[in-house]
Amino acid sequence: MSEDNQKTLESFIKAVWNQGDLDAIDSFVADSYTIHHDPGDPWDHRTLTVEGLKERVRISREPVPDQTFEIQSLLSDENRVFITWLWKGTHLGEVSGFEATGKELLMSGATIYYFEQGKITGHWQIADRLSVYQQLMANSIV
Amino acid sequence: MSEDNQKTLESFIKAVWNQGDLDAIDSFVADSYTIHHDPGDPWDHRTLTVEGLKERVRISREPVPDQTFEIQSLLSDENRVFITWLWKGTHLGEVSGFEATGKELLMSGATIYYFEQGKITGHWQIADRLSVYQQLMANSIV
Repeated sequence: MSEDNQKTLESFIKAVWNQGDLDAIDSFVADSYTIHHDPGDPWDHRTLTVEGLKERVRISREPVPDQTFEIQSLLSDENRVFITWLWKGTHLGEVSGFEATGKELLMSGATIYYFEQGKITGHWQIADRLSVYQQLMANSIV
Repeated sequence: MSEDNQKTLESFIKAVWNQGDLDAIDSFVADSYTIHHDPGDPWDHRTLTVEGLKERVRISREPVPDQTFEIQSLLSDENRVFITWLWKGTHLGEVSGFEATGKELLMSGATIYYFEQGKITGHWQIADRLSVYQQLMANSIV
């Protein structure tokens, strides 16, 4: 079960977040998806339908369309999978009020994904937002 | 082994980080302690001796001496313990260039602690530094 969930999560990250395949969400996610903790995320503390989650992914990916999450570490128990990750992508649209610069942005973070019967039901996440803010500030000054 | 490491980590956080008992480090930590990833930490990417780690904890705790880490989630395998946490404390000394305000600061984060033979050998950490920066900015304007 734990290893199946790990494989599901790796496929979810690759298809949905890295490749932007929104329809793939149907096969990975439960009927509702809760963002338990994700400071700075506009959907923090909300429970979304599958369609709501598709909208969240679409809007989140829009300004950085070539973004990729590279998983660093992976740990799991029966109903949780924990990952640490490095994220990068090209800044091609407005991010936190900063217009597109065409430069690469880097960020690191850690997430617990929650599972029920093999489907993802939500997450708890921390991202190093300050480093992205510093990159955006530096880029906008140049 | 995994459960022993969890207990060790809970005792380490409580004694060392929450209560500031630097000498307790001797019993929890291996001969060297590596900060694999901890953006914004002055010791990021360094390997410290036990004495060096004591100095890091002492300096880090100084401006927020009543700080506490409250563990939210805990997961482990043989040589790793992963926690998510909420941190809080009173801002009584200079933090990132901001003078003491006497106000409470809040932060969340996630850490993997690495173990060898029951001793902690280092960590990989992400903290939501941007929210602390925003609190410091808000406090300094008031």
